[in-house]
Order: sequence, then structure tokens, then C-alpha cells
Amino acid sequence: MNFPVLYLRKGAERRLRAGHLWVYSNEVDIQRSPLTQFEAGTQAELRASNDKPLGVIFVNPHALICGRLISRDAAQGMTPNRLTQRMEMALVLRERLFDKPFYRWVFGDSDGLSGLVIDRFGDTVVVQISTAGMEQMKESIVRAVQRLAHAKAIILKNDGKMRSVEGLSSYVEQVHGPEATLLEVEENGVRFEVPLEGGQKTGWFYDHRMNRQRLQAYAPGKRVLDVFSYVGGWGIQAACAGATQVTCVDSSSAAVDSVHHNAKLNGLDNVETIEGDAFDALKALAEEKEKYDIVVLDPPAFIPRRRDQKAGEQAYARLNQLGLRLLDRDGILVSASCSMHLSQEKLVDIIRGSGRKIDRFVQLLEQGHQAPDHPIIPGIPETDYIKSCFIRSLTGFM
Amino acid sequence: MNFPVLYLRKGAERRLRAGHLWVYSNEVDIQRSPLTQFEAGTQAELRASNDKPLGVIFVNPHALICGRLISRDAAQGMTPNRLTQRMEMALVLRERLFDKPFYRWVFGDSDGLSGLVIDRFGDTVVVQISTAGMEQMKESIVRAVQRLAHAKAIILKNDGKMRSVEGLSSYVEQVHGPEATLLEVEENGVRFEVPLEGGQKTGWFYDHRMNRQRLQAYAPGKRVLDVFSYVGGWGIQAACAGATQVTCVDSSSAAVDSVHHNAKLNGLDNVETIEGDAFDALKALAEEKEKYDIVVLDPPAFIPRRRDQKAGEQAYARLNQLGLRLLDRDGILVSASCSMHLSQEKLVDIIRGSGRKIDRFVQLLEQGHQAPDHPIIPGIPETDYIKSCFIRSLTGFM
Repeated sequence: MNFPVLYLRKGAERRLRAGHLWVYSNEVDIQRSPLTQFEAGTQAELRASNDKPLGVIFVNPHALICGRLISRDAAQGMTPNRLTQRMEMALVLRERLFDKPFYRWVFGDSDGLSGLVIDRFGDTVVVQISTAGMEQMKESIVRAVQRLAHAKAIILKNDGKMRSVEGLSSYVEQVHGPEATLLEVEENGVRFEVPLEGGQKTGWFYDHRMNRQRLQAYAPGKRVLDVFSYVGGWGIQAACAGATQVTCVDSSSAAVDSVHHNAKLNGLDNVETIEGDAFDALKALAEEKEKYDIVVLDPPAFIPRRRDQKAGEQAYARLNQLGLRLLDRDGILVSASCSMHLSQEKLVDIIRGSGRKIDRFVQLLEQGHQAPDHPIIPGIPETDYIKSCFIRSLTGFM
Repeated sequence: MNFPVLYLRKGAERRLRAGHLWVYSNEVDIQRSPLTQFEAGTQAELRASNDKPLGVIFVNPHALICGRLISRDAAQGMTPNRLTQRMEMALVLRERLFDKPFYRWVFGDSDGLSGLVIDRFGDTVVVQISTAGMEQMKESIVRAVQRLAHAKAIILKNDGKMRSVEGLSSYVEQVHGPEATLLEVEENGVRFEVPLEGGQKTGWFYDHRMNRQRLQAYAPGKRVLDVFSYVGGWGIQAACAGATQVTCVDSSSAAVDSVHHNAKLNGLDNVETIEGDAFDALKALAEEKEKYDIVVLDPPAFIPRRRDQKAGEQAYARLNQLGLRLLDRDGILVSASCSMHLSQEKLVDIIRGSGRKIDRFVQLLEQGHQAPDHPIIPGIPETDYIKSCFIRSLTGFM
């Protein structure tokens, strides 16, 4: 194919050659290839300053990330066929790893499909498009979902924050099947139902699947506190695995309602909820001298942007110290983070510091990451965001 | 108790306060407390330069690590009772996590028992003592093993490299039970037998247990190459999980014999071996255009000391590139390292570089660490050494 050419400034190809797939607008040689020449969502050939071809990108002249590499072969752009092939390669991996159709089917750049996220909930498929380039492929995406997954319902949940940056409108639309109002999820053998309306992101976070599975190994016979519980992903799985008592804390009343609904769905009668701010709730529980065998902390990203680093790290430290204080003498802290800007190493160090401050002997038993349906591309740090630490905290041990 | 006092130089307490448990000989204020005053293996109170008590240590004036903190309470040294309590606390964790008695029962500093490692193989228990301090507790250790585990056989495998540094003799001695010549192991539902004589370390490496369990999820229907296989830990578990064909590579003929023995033990007839140097074997396989669906690389530590950093990283890079080359178009590389000096981040970066060099689209699916019977103490980097990456490598994908 014959694409218009976008030239990089000298040296700007280095990150791409090392494995990244994004082009920033300040890396473009706008003398040779003015960005204004390109229409949002079109394809272009990308070349280094020495004319060497680097591949094909989706261009968006209005976005800070103005190019997204979709092929390292300059002759091969994105076509409906290639899109379907990549969606199929993504599906092959998920079908190999999960015996039921509940997973993140496509994880954007990580599956060679920058701007596209697809979550599968049995026969219902939720698609999120976040770039102008991928928006152009919308119809092909829907057709490929039908062809590959025989979905009964396909929902375009195109209301992500990034869309306005890309000049795209925000909407949610069911494009196929009888109207769906509820997502059914099965994770690690436990069932959940999540209302489609008002749910977070696509409605469910598969990224902690493996970590929640590990929690099940620790849960039997234990009292569990699940902080920032959302619809009960951690807590209800712990209860199903044999926890004697589970308390879920969330500030959203819809989430709290969902916890009760999902507890009932799994035949559980030992799941309580606290609706309120997590920090306030933890402090109140500490004042009441409540103790738990397991405390799970899965907060929203406290460091959404680089400039939030310091305040965010302090928030993680406060939270983890509160969590440790609520543990019994031999307790397990499950401390998670979804902040891309918080490294696993730093999270461990925060817990180390919190433990030393209140004189706990702290053993790091397990370190979890995002599930394999959220592959990380080495060279694209933005694809790596989930981490969890399983900590044993001993009081008066040493 | 009344212990002689060992004083630190100014500032040397900082690392200990942050969580570490070791004192280096150059951190001691030898004016106030000459090391020569202390006998190897005795206990001493440790104080900061400002006289603040830091706890109790085992002292060894002859070793670079001349002190090992065994209590942060200056009034409480190590006693047979306290030793038994700590061994019991260690056991509680393992019994909670593993349904059969096959695990590392005690992992030195990580269980508050610096200088002591105990592996459990059903009724047989292998004890390793590596410090003069712990050697003094030998009889109490054996008694505690008998009391807590009702072991039928107890073996002191006191032939580790560190013993001579501590001024201890090297010996292997069975102190209890009818003579044992074989260790029986069960890991992730798969059986192994390892000859006691001539085996590596305590005979089996439980540290990769969780990673080998994850391998089982990828194995069904696949051809697997297990490089540096030792007695077949990875390969035979893959075969039991449904791999169609497994090839184990090891340079030791005893290890290769063990692979065949263990394959038979599990009723497998699809496990082959190659006896020889791993690098040579991989090159030969590449020349023969052999391809595998899964390649497992679990080499010995290529970076045993800091000064080996560069050469070691190059060896990892060469090995991973050879591994990637042997994969089919949609293959899985399991790349492990037991080098404390190689960070997870660096290992991922090495694989990224190898993948880019030979134009593979590389997805990092899972990151594994040492199993929870090898707890890491945040603040003691020396306790953190195992890492593994599960990589999907795609050829001609992008």
C-alpha cells in the first residue's frame, strides 16, 4: 500500500526500535511532514530521520501521542483481515489459558491493537475504542467479534477519558443482540453479576484474577477485610474459598448493593459491607479494636500522573499502615496497586517502612502481577500497571 | 539475660533499623568492643554508637558477616524454647499453604532463624546449618524437628560453602532414623525421587514450585524443551500436565539418569534427554532446525558475585536468544534466574533486547517469584533471588 510518510526527528526512532509503539508529537519532523497534513485516524508510513522505514502508524495530529505503530513492515497497514488475524491470535492465547470465556480478549498495544480493548463475559462482549485510528475500524471490529466469538450481545462502551483527547465523542451503544443490562462473570470458579449501567471501566477487572486466585489459598477459616471492594471480587472469592467472615468496604452504594447481590448469588451468608471512605472506615475499625486475619487493599490508582508521585506514595504508606494495624498477631496483608507509576519495588519498600514503624516482622510471601490476558510489552512501561504483595505480618515475633 | 555488648560505629545501625539483620565486621566499633573478645557462635547484645540497644546477635569474629540479629529485644536471646517457637511459626505457614508435607520448612533469616535451612520431604527432613551461632543450637534443632514433624529420618547436610567461612567443618550425617538414600518429593501433584548422595543443595529446589505449577497450564498438547533440567522438575511436570513431548537437557549424567527414573515413576514414555552443555545443545538443536512450543531456561546463577555482573548478563542474553530461536511461530519461553544480582526488571529487559534483535513480538504474560515457603524479607535483598518470566513469542506478527 501507498501511505503518506511521517518523518521522525533525529534519534526519535530509538524508543520504537527498543520495543515501544507510540510516537509523541514533539518527535515528528514537522518541517518535512507537517502533522496538519494528516487526518485523524488515517494510516501513514513512519520513517526515521535517515529515511529508514519503521513501519505503519495510525496518525492523530490532535493528540499528544500522534502516532501508534500498527506494523513494523512499512508495506503492511491495518486492514479488516489483519485486524481479524490479530484478534484471533489474541483469542488463541486466552482460550489456551482459560477454560471458560471470561477474560480480557484484547489488551490494546499488548495485542498489536493500539486503541482497542475487548472484554468477554461469556456470550456478551464489551468493546472499548479509544483512538481515532481504531474508530475507523469499528465495523470490522464488530464483524470480527461476531465471527470469532459468536457473541449474543456486543456493547460498544466508548466513554473512556481518552476519547475526547482523540477528538472522539463519548457514547455507549449496544450494536448487536437483545438488550443487555447485566454482565455475568465467572472468575476462579466464583460467579458475579455486574450492572452494565454505571459500572467501572468495562464493568469488571480481570487484571487481578491470578491474585484473587492466590487469595483463595489463604482464606479458609479466616476473617477477611476487603477494602475498596467494588462489587466484591476479592472478598466474595475469599468467602467461597472458606473464609468464615468477610467485610467489604466501598464508598459507592451501588457497589455495596452489588456485593450483597453477589454474595447471595453464591449462596453466602457471611459477607457484610461498610459503605464509606476507606481511610475513615479503617480508622473507625482500629478504634473499635477490630482485628482480621486477612486485609485486602486494592485501591484506585493513587498516582494517576507523574506529578502525583509523592502524595500518592504517602497515601499508599498511610493505607498500608492502617491495614497492618488491623491484622491479628499472625495476619496476611494483600496490598495491591494499579498505579503504573508505582513500581513493585517501591510498593514493597512502602510496606517494609510501614512494618518497621509499627514493629511488625514482615515476610513477603508472594508477588502478583496482572493476569496473562493483560500481557505486558517489555519496552512499553505503560502496559505494566498491576502489582500485588502477599505479606505475612507477625507481632511480637522478633 | 546478660550478654556481652557489641557496639556499632556511628550510623551503622541504619540498615538494621530499616529491616536488615546482618552486621558486617567493618561496622563494629572495635575500640569499644574488640571482635577478638567474642567467641564464634556466642550471643551478644548489639548497641548503636549512642548506646541504644538494637537486639541480640549471634557473633562470629572470623566472618565478614560477624553478627546476625536474632532478636530486636535486647533482653531476649536465642534459647531452645525460642528456636522451637520460631520453627513452629514457620511450620504453621507451610501447613496452611501446602496440603502435603513437601516444602522448605525454614528459610534462614526469613523465618528469624539466620543460618538455618530445613527442607521437608514427607517423613524425611534435611537440615542445613551454615553459621557458628546456629551450630551451637544443633541438638535443639534436631529435637524440635522430631517434636514438631515426627520425622522418620533427619539428615544434617552440613556441607555448604559458607561453613568454612564460619570456621565449621563440612559433613553429612544422618542423626535419626533408618538409613535414607533417596528423597521422595511430591510437587504440584507430580512425584520425584532424588538420590541423597551427590544431589544439589538439599536435593530438591522447592523455590520454583509456583512457577512450575504455572507451566502446567501452558503444557497440554505442546512440545517442551527443558534446559538445565537437573532431575526434570519442569519437564516432567509439563509431561504430566499433558505435553506431548519433552526433552530435558543437563550436563550431569546423574541428573539425566534421574530424569529417566522420574519419568518412569510417573508412567511417562515421552521424556527424552540430552546430556551435555546447555549452550552447545541449544546451538546443535538450532542447526538441526528443531522447534519447540515451550522452552524452559532455568540456569544456575550466572551472576554469583557482583563482579560477575556484566559477563553474567551477557550469558543470560545469549541463552535467552538461543531459547527464543528454538521456539515455533507462537511459542512460550519460560526464562528463570536464581541470581540475586539480576533484577526482575533487568531479566525482562534482556528478553526484550533478545526479542528485538531477532524480530519477535514478545508478550510478557506472567512473572513468577520464589514460592511462599521462601519468604522475602523486605530490607534484606539477599533473601530475594528467584524470578521467572513467561513470555509469548510471535514470529511475523507485526
